[in-house]
Amino acid sequence: MSFVRRIERVALAVEDLDRAQAFFETWFGAEFRPEETIEDMGIRYRPFRLGESRMELLQATRQDSPVAKFLRSHGGPGVHHLTFEVDDLDDALQELERRGGRIAARHEYGPGVTFEGHVWREAFVHPRDACGVLIHLAEKRPVDEGTGER
Amino acid sequence: MSFVRRIERVALAVEDLDRAQAFFETWFGAEFRPEETIEDMGIRYRPFRLGESRMELLQATRQDSPVAKFLRSHGGPGVHHLTFEVDDLDDALQELERRGGRIAARHEYGPGVTFEGHVWREAFVHPRDACGVLIHLAEKRPVDEGTGER
Repeated sequence: MSFVRRIERVALAVEDLDRAQAFFETWFGAEFRPEETIEDMGIRYRPFRLGESRMELLQATRQDSPVAKFLRSHGGPGVHHLTFEVDDLDDALQELERRGGRIAARHEYGPGVTFEGHVWREAFVHPRDACGVLIHLAEKRPVDEGTGER
Repeated sequence: MSFVRRIERVALAVEDLDRAQAFFETWFGAEFRPEETIEDMGIRYRPFRLGESRMELLQATRQDSPVAKFLRSHGGPGVHHLTFEVDDLDDALQELERRGGRIAARHEYGPGVTFEGHVWREAFVHPRDACGVLIHLAEKRPVDEGTGER
């Protein structure tokens, strides 16, 4: 049994959000949600649905953004990370460590910061450990549950 | 609306199936199915489940395999392709073309060739078109339905 609930989304790093969005909309009928920005990480992103599944497009807002670094080292656009959804991040990280795993980074957002109507808590497993893939472990809670508001 | 039903799986190209399997099993509790081979493509692969989702690991059986080429050009392991499942491949390709899209290749297996108990029909969208990602469009039918056997 895995403590991972599902691959919640596949995130692509791109140079041009508009062009990439047009590709997924035109060719595949992807349904985009509004763009959001993660200031901490220097990222603009656009989540979308493709059938039952989710993806997102990421564009850097500055040269020291992880997405800008990815584009340089990767030599162009591609899969930036896979999001593995977990029920509870603390439990998941404890279980991961018990199994001999390790995280490369943990990221906490400030109070009240939400994405797509959810509070996110997250950590990352380094591509060196994970077959060349950045794994994003994420707990997502709807805002009303995350903040106690109704 | 998309003619894509879901991201059916994320496929990783690796140099060493055993080591990669051990990583996903040990760290995440992935549930592997038996290895299969696609002779046409020079690929050994191991599908697995991670929570509700599917992934697979791919290893090349020869130097001219697409997976061997990927490892050389990518400089190591990583996401080889995303499988977008469609209900009917002919309908999907017709719709894709109607929308101005194009496929890079179509692959038909010989009669009776199955993978994971399914007949697969498939086509590929080139990474140059698709934000650096190889998109695998696949129709999967259970063997009894695909062959008329019960």
